[in-house]
Amino acid sequence: MTAVSVGLPPTLVGTGDLFQLMRDGRPRTRGELAQLSSLARSTITARVDALLLSGLLQPVGEAASTGGRPPTRFAINPHDRVVLAIDLGASHATVAITDMSGEVLGQRTVDSDIADGPVTVLDRVAAIGVDLLGEHDRSIDEVAGVGIGVPGPVEHATGRPANPPIMPGWHDVDIPAHLNRHFPGPVLVDNDVNLMALGEYVTSWESSRHLLLVKVATGIGAGIVADGRLLRGALGSAGDLGHVQVAGAPDDVVCRCGNVGCLEAVAAGPAIAAKLRAGGLDVEGSQGIVDAVAAGEIAALQAVREAGRDLGTVLATCVNLLNPSVIVIGGKLSEAGEYLLAGVREVVYQRSLPLATHDLRIVSTAAGTQGGILGASAMVIDAVLSPRAVDAYVAQRTA
Amino acid sequence: MTAVSVGLPPTLVGTGDLFQLMRDGRPRTRGELAQLSSLARSTITARVDALLLSGLLQPVGEAASTGGRPPTRFAINPHDRVVLAIDLGASHATVAITDMSGEVLGQRTVDSDIADGPVTVLDRVAAIGVDLLGEHDRSIDEVAGVGIGVPGPVEHATGRPANPPIMPGWHDVDIPAHLNRHFPGPVLVDNDVNLMALGEYVTSWESSRHLLLVKVATGIGAGIVADGRLLRGALGSAGDLGHVQVAGAPDDVVCRCGNVGCLEAVAAGPAIAAKLRAGGLDVEGSQGIVDAVAAGEIAALQAVREAGRDLGTVLATCVNLLNPSVIVIGGKLSEAGEYLLAGVREVVYQRSLPLATHDLRIVSTAAGTQGGILGASAMVIDAVLSPRAVDAYVAQRTA
Repeated sequence: MTAVSVGLPPTLVGTGDLFQLMRDGRPRTRGELAQLSSLARSTITARVDALLLSGLLQPVGEAASTGGRPPTRFAINPHDRVVLAIDLGASHATVAITDMSGEVLGQRTVDSDIADGPVTVLDRVAAIGVDLLGEHDRSIDEVAGVGIGVPGPVEHATGRPANPPIMPGWHDVDIPAHLNRHFPGPVLVDNDVNLMALGEYVTSWESSRHLLLVKVATGIGAGIVADGRLLRGALGSAGDLGHVQVAGAPDDVVCRCGNVGCLEAVAAGPAIAAKLRAGGLDVEGSQGIVDAVAAGEIAALQAVREAGRDLGTVLATCVNLLNPSVIVIGGKLSEAGEYLLAGVREVVYQRSLPLATHDLRIVSTAAGTQGGILGASAMVIDAVLSPRAVDAYVAQRTA
Repeated sequence: MTAVSVGLPPTLVGTGDLFQLMRDGRPRTRGELAQLSSLARSTITARVDALLLSGLLQPVGEAASTGGRPPTRFAINPHDRVVLAIDLGASHATVAITDMSGEVLGQRTVDSDIADGPVTVLDRVAAIGVDLLGEHDRSIDEVAGVGIGVPGPVEHATGRPANPPIMPGWHDVDIPAHLNRHFPGPVLVDNDVNLMALGEYVTSWESSRHLLLVKVATGIGAGIVADGRLLRGALGSAGDLGHVQVAGAPDDVVCRCGNVGCLEAVAAGPAIAAKLRAGGLDVEGSQGIVDAVAAGEIAALQAVREAGRDLGTVLATCVNLLNPSVIVIGGKLSEAGEYLLAGVREVVYQRSLPLATHDLRIVSTAAGTQGGILGASAMVIDAVLSPRAVDAYVAQRTA
């Protein structure tokens, strides 16, 4: 006798609600939909007709007959519209178009300095988006929405960056308004690491509900999925792990933020590279560290593992606080393979509560550099295929 | 052009959805409801009639006439049913009945050892609940649901404690099934600190959406409200701050968990009391510390402030990770007043990111020891007044 067991009254199941039943991608007949939804056959027929007319559903062959004419099966039509997914980094931009199932149809990455400012950068990626659409014979009208990740905190509700430290000129810029000059549909903006977390979640971990993704590269940041939803915080800065004080870290290491003992100051790419150079190894940037590890340089293996331990000290706190099912390590330094992960595991399993690590998995990213694009696409698909948005779309297309 | 701006199609607005418009408690006429919901007047009339018949709404006088018969105003009926709210501690139990607005109608606190085991304790609180109902002339059938907080991690979906360290005999016990032998309606179970967070949130901070409540007493734990929802984690252990390693803490302080440098081992009641006793002050337990602070003992003020700093070191990490709008300090030691808070503020504002502390408030609990009861009641009200639950209730009452 719990609130959850109360059945959904038929009058509440609109076209958009019925459509949700199809989002798992499995083809179904009208009869199967009637059974799943408890709606009358006549209601199902009317709503399926509307969804077919709108293009959101398509017929996909026939089910086995039980006598008489075999019933038609329907499934979600992933080609109905496309999503434009954009991932802005400090020095590059990736633009992709995906179908409505999140599959990437085409993608391009270009050098692009975020410091060129919002007008230049947004017009640049919009032009690439228009190009990609043309290459794949899709029109601008077919764009269901745009998702974009930026390297800084964002007020998600308005799509405006909030005092982003490495994005000069972007504070409070209305990114949705700018991109809506080029494309129709909702424009949803989020922090790039949040979208990496979402991308990893929807492609590999949707059943686990609670995920923490940590990006380790020039900086260190995290994206949090709690109970299936991105946790963004009051001002969009949740997950900012780079300047957390590391217990046990030397207190004479001054961070670029002005504090001492920050995680970034001991475990990010620049800190590791500086340590290796001080030891006589000629290493530049995160890629240099990854190369040195690949070459089997003992000092590099040791330094990366030690960085993993520092990261693990902070993640042990995150594990006690958030109780995630999975921690995913991403970013350039995750390419250093098992050494970083081993250091993380060592400390997390030692320092976290037994209950919180009972089912905890700590893994390397599966989505890799594609995470941001996949997350941006998923964010838009989730919005434009919501029950309300589907109802509105069907009404507009069948008017 | 965002997904959120898409209007709710009228066909989707069921009786339960219409009822949500009334949950702010403001009286409205049928005409005002028609305007708010965009539903046809005839639909409004039918649904308001059903809500009146079910007892969920009541007439509350007349609006000013604009000519002709003045229209009737309706409002939510808080007396429709009652909620049973239970707060189990290690050595006491509080049982309350509240109305459907969360107002406490009656309450009793008794000594109750959680180690007496689930059957004894649950039968004990059930008997008190039956007594309270009788005292307030309410029948068991009028119970809309039961909310109960327990001092340990809980799998919220099933209402079963999960390896609770201080609740011998309670692991995996089906609390809802046991209480449903006494009362109808959903039985919702949660960790006591989670419910304190929820109670604080619904009574004082609902507009802030992101709250972290920290209970500081014999142990230290936190409840997290993120975007208006309790964050429970994969196994219900989220918010377990007590065994987080404190950066800068002496590494020779062994905690009862076996690790060193844990927050509880330096900043909880027993640690502070031990420190004061070592300094020659005769102090026992958290209450003793509060009394010593009230008496103006310098050593006590200093020790509490230092505990606040250690707490602040861990909370600075929480602030960067969760970006809350408000941190509420509760539990017995919060009665030590500004000294604990001052220590917390000192370190949080020094160690957290500027953006994350931009609008951050750090305050003492307003709900105090009532937080758990208020949270338990709010959890049940939220479940039984959800659109689906209201639809089912109206259907049952008007059949």
